[in-house]
Parts: sequence; C-alpha cells; structure tokens
Amino acid sequence: MVSIPIALEGQRHEVIVGAGASSEAPALAAGRDRVAILADRRVAALHGPLIDGASTLEVDAGEPLKSMDGLAQVLDFCAAAGLSRGSLLVAYGGGTVGDLGGLAASLFKRGLDVLQVPTTLLAQVDASVGGKTAINLPAGKNLAGSFHQPAGVLCDTALLATLSDAEFSSGLGEVIKTSIIGGEAALGQTEELMGSLIERDPRALTAVVEACVRVKAQVVVSDPEERGPRRALNLGHTFAHAIESAAGYGAVPHGVAVGVGLGLAARAAEATCGAPSELTERTVLLLERAGLPSSLGALRGVYGLEERLTPAALRAGLAHDKKGAVGAPEFVLARGAGDVIMGQPLDEDLLAELLA
Amino acid sequence: MVSIPIALEGQRHEVIVGAGASSEAPALAAGRDRVAILADRRVAALHGPLIDGASTLEVDAGEPLKSMDGLAQVLDFCAAAGLSRGSLLVAYGGGTVGDLGGLAASLFKRGLDVLQVPTTLLAQVDASVGGKTAINLPAGKNLAGSFHQPAGVLCDTALLATLSDAEFSSGLGEVIKTSIIGGEAALGQTEELMGSLIERDPRALTAVVEACVRVKAQVVVSDPEERGPRRALNLGHTFAHAIESAAGYGAVPHGVAVGVGLGLAARAAEATCGAPSELTERTVLLLERAGLPSSLGALRGVYGLEERLTPAALRAGLAHDKKGAVGAPEFVLARGAGDVIMGQPLDEDLLAELLA
Repeated sequence: MVSIPIALEGQRHEVIVGAGASSEAPALAAGRDRVAILADRRVAALHGPLIDGASTLEVDAGEPLKSMDGLAQVLDFCAAAGLSRGSLLVAYGGGTVGDLGGLAASLFKRGLDVLQVPTTLLAQVDASVGGKTAINLPAGKNLAGSFHQPAGVLCDTALLATLSDAEFSSGLGEVIKTSIIGGEAALGQTEELMGSLIERDPRALTAVVEACVRVKAQVVVSDPEERGPRRALNLGHTFAHAIESAAGYGAVPHGVAVGVGLGLAARAAEATCGAPSELTERTVLLLERAGLPSSLGALRGVYGLEERLTPAALRAGLAHDKKGAVGAPEFVLARGAGDVIMGQPLDEDLLAELLA
Repeated sequence: MVSIPIALEGQRHEVIVGAGASSEAPALAAGRDRVAILADRRVAALHGPLIDGASTLEVDAGEPLKSMDGLAQVLDFCAAAGLSRGSLLVAYGGGTVGDLGGLAASLFKRGLDVLQVPTTLLAQVDASVGGKTAINLPAGKNLAGSFHQPAGVLCDTALLATLSDAEFSSGLGEVIKTSIIGGEAALGQTEELMGSLIERDPRALTAVVEACVRVKAQVVVSDPEERGPRRALNLGHTFAHAIESAAGYGAVPHGVAVGVGLGLAARAAEATCGAPSELTERTVLLLERAGLPSSLGALRGVYGLEERLTPAALRAGLAHDKKGAVGAPEFVLARGAGDVIMGQPLDEDLLAELLA
C-alpha cells in the first residue's frame, strides 16, 4: 500500500492506495464521538460493513441518488445518527455515493469530516481527489455542490474485483484521460499496463490508481477552487457532459462519455492547435483496448441512442457547460501528452463536424 | 454612510451602512455577466426593485422558506436565470432570505458571489456579517448550511422604517446581545440611544447598526469557521434555540427568543461565574425598553405558548445544540460587558430552575 499526502486549503490528508486499504477505516474513525456510514447497498452486501457498529444508511447508487431528495435523505440520516461537528461521515461506494456523501458532510452543521472510500475505478482515480462534491439539478448535472476536502481517502483496489465489466471499462476512460494529462511517463505506463489492467491484475491496478491520484493531486493542489490550471482535468469533459445531458443522465456511464469526449477532443486539438495525429491514434487505440467507444458513431450504436444523441441535442448540451461564461462552452484540449490548453474556442463548422 | 471593510478567508468585502445604502446595488452589480435577485415579496412591493432588469424570484420570507424545498426552488431559479460562476446573486430581504440566498449561492456551480441586502434590523446587525448560511431540517434549525462570504453587504437603515413593531423589536434583541459582547462602550451607546432607536431615528439606527457590525466583524475575523472565539456570538443562543425548537420554528421571532435567552444567560452567569447582578439588571432593563420579554414567564404569556414551552420541552430542545459535542449543550455566558466565556457547563438543578 502507498500513502499519498495531499495538502489543500489549509488541510492535509492522505490517500491510501492498495489492496486492502479499506481495512484502515476503523483506525481512521477511532476517537470520533460518532461515526456514520453512507453505503452503496450492493457494495455493503458484497464486501461487508466497513466499521462494526456504525449507523449505516444503505442507498442505491447511481445518478438518481444525486438529487435534492437524496441530499435531504442523507442530511436527515446525519441528524438521526446524532452527528456533531466532530463526528465522521464515511462515504462507501462509487462516485455518486462519494459526491452525495461529501456534499452532505460539507453542509451538515456547516461541515463535518468525511472519509471517502471509493469502490469503483472511476471514483478511485477521479472523484477521490480534489474535494469536489455535487448533486444534479433538473437543469443539469453537478449543478449544485461544494468543495469539501476529505479527512482521508481509502482506495482499496481489491474492491475493484467485483465491478461489472461495464463499470470497470468506464473507469478506464478516466484513467486514459488522467494519463494524457500526466504526460509521457503516465501515458506510457498506462499503455504498457492496459493488458494487465483489463485482467484486473492487483499490482497493475495499484500502480495505475496511484499514478492517477498523483497526477490529479498535483493539478488540484495548484488550484483547489478550479479557477485556473485545475480545469485541465476537464479534458474531454465538455463533450462528455453534452453526451450525458443529451442521452439522459445515467444512460451513458460517465467514463464511457469521457472516453468519447477524449476522442472528440483529440480530433479538435488536431484541427485547431497542431496536436499530432499520433496522439489521436494512441488515444483511440487505448480506448479500444479498454473496450470503450472512441467516436459518437460507435457510442450511438453500442447504446442504441441514435435518436437522443443527435447533433442538435449534443450542441444544446454543450451550451450548459458549467465552467464557461454564459453561453460559451470551454473546451480543454491536449496538444501533446502533458500539454493541455484551456479556453480554446471551437468554431461552429468544426463543432458540427465533430458532433455529426 | 459608512463602509466597514471585512477581510475573511482570503477574501475582502465591505459592509456599507446608512440610509440609502441599497442604492449602491446597481454599481456593485456592474460588470457581471448576469445578475439575479432573490427578493422578499413584501420588501420588493414596498421598496421597489433593487436593480432594473435583473431576473427576480420573489418569495415569502419566514422560517418555512429555509427548507430543502426552498433551496431547490432557488437553485432551479439560478439555473433558469442562466447564472455562471461569474454572475451575482442578490439576497434582498430579512435573515431567512439572506440565509437561503447565501446557501444557494455557495452551492450553485459550487459557488457564485452573493450580494447581501438585509432589510430587517435583525439581519443587518447579525446575519449580514460572517458568511453563515443555512436552511432548517425536520430535526432542527439551521442544521444544514455553509460558510460563504458575501461579495458585499448593504445595510440600508432607511428600509427599517417599514418594519412592523414586532419585527423591529426582535432585531433589538440581537442589538442588545451584540452590545453586551462588544463591551462597555457598545453597551453604553445602546443604552443611551434606545429611546431614539425605538422611534427609528435614522441617525441612531445607523450608529447602532454600524457598532454591531464592527463588533461582529472583529469577532468573526478572528475565527471565520467558528471553531473558537466566534462562539461568543452565541451568547443567549443555546437557550434561544431551545425556545424556538419547543415553540415550533417561526412561532417566536428569533430576536425575541434571543432576548429571553439573554435574560436566562445573565441569571446563569450570576449563579455560576460571578457575574454582577448589575449586568443582569441592565440586560433586563434594555429588553423591557425594547419591548421584549426578558423571562420565560413573560414570553409564555405574550405568545400564549404555555403548553409548548414546558420545562421538559425546553430541556429536550437544549440537547439538540449544534455547537456542542453529542448530548452536551454549550452555554455562552457573559461575566461582564465584553467578557464572554464559553463552554460553561450548567448543572441540571440550575437548568431546572432557569427553565421553570
């Protein structure tokens, strides 16, 4: 197991990565006046309780959980569990559980500590670092949330063994994104290990999750509130959010949408800022090896979403981009491995070609 | 008009106090890509729109507004108004509008700026400084919220002319509390000006609001996240929250409950930590001059709440104190003007006597 220290917003915590990392939970919860757990029902059934005797709210993971109703349910649970500001809330599940649990923790009594125990590959490499929390609004995904750094993060790679192939592949979409942002060393390692990753080799998983956490931590520490460099992490995400919006939230797994977004961003970078075609090819090959669609055409076919993922619906989805100014979606593009640029405008002709 | 600079959590903003301060709103909103206003319907009808052409959501002020449903409504309004992270949300109303607007602003797209334009005396002297936001949960008042410093605060004392006598008196409860915390100079000024305050003399109002803002700012700046000294501001509040909880939220105005809380805290301070009886007498006299009950007996009579404000219900309400550890309410007591102590335990016999 490795421990990666993260110092953010005057706080310091550790991300522990490795097979068996979740067994550290009881030690991290020791000394708290109360401990409560928000758990994915399926994860709790497969892997058992994290901490004996803690009040637990089991929920059905997924995008519908990230709603105002879901938030109300968790806040009421915190009240019923009698949590004080010195208590600990544990979020035990994938990204939706972590996002909701983190938001509830940031709000209950104006803020209590949260221990994140992400149980999907997507959440371990992405949601676990940076302290972003969110729920969806009827108007769009992740439209309400906070920045709330966790008291600790346990990325137990042994838990990934029980993920479905679809969930696992979705996580590989974020792995590929983070590797491109990280630079040649990270991208090369992911290319080298992709065969072992697909077989869920524990050592390969730990190496890649660790590398992704380090890349993300480096970017996030430089910009905790996402006002500048942190936006690099949105590589492919403006397209991905448009896809998820047009498909209906939850219809396309986030990492799958990110994968297609990476393919589109690579083509956009080639067309507008001189990115080499080799980077597009490496991206597409990695996506294919990971079992992910790399184009809208492939995505539409795989998910039977031809009627929803129309160019017009996707263009409308882009207009809702949360990070840009009103009406101006912000694209993040890679000119090379480790060379990400932000704020690139794309003209309507190119957008039409990409979204066709 | 006076301008009081407040530097908190790496941000700096000004609190502008005086008759006509709200006319500064258009200038403060200039340069934003979008501006939206959350307005108390009654205030908007009496005093007109703050900023011409801004999207406005008019709401009925009051404790029921501070709910998950109210929060959902304001967040959906922010989305419908097309706000970006660079936009401005204006909270134009009393404390409930400010608390809800501030919370929605802190959450929408993980945080946009809020301009607070408090329109009640209570909100001008209390809620306007410190960046606390909140909604109520079924389990208790202000149980979910955030710390979100405003981009600016406009305390327009001319707006106080249209408050009902009950609303105005309630605000005087917080004025008296803040004056005791501030020390002999602040307390003496409030005693000197109480006659003019009751007549809503604009100069007296501006002087007292300014003094209260300065006292509160001084305490808050030393402890933005309320981990230590800021708890001094909760003088009388543990009792007040128990009263509001037992009465049913909204049945007793907050400042009225605080007034009774000050009376109880003064008696507790006399009994346990050597506070002079003179301070209790000054407190009670100020409350009476302000038209506020200073004892539970008087409160029960005025509001006809004999059946709800029973000793047992009040004792149960104390157990829900948000600031203390599990099950241990934290009392804040004044040993003298400007000499506030925290963490004082009160034994059950004394509590029984106070709550009788």
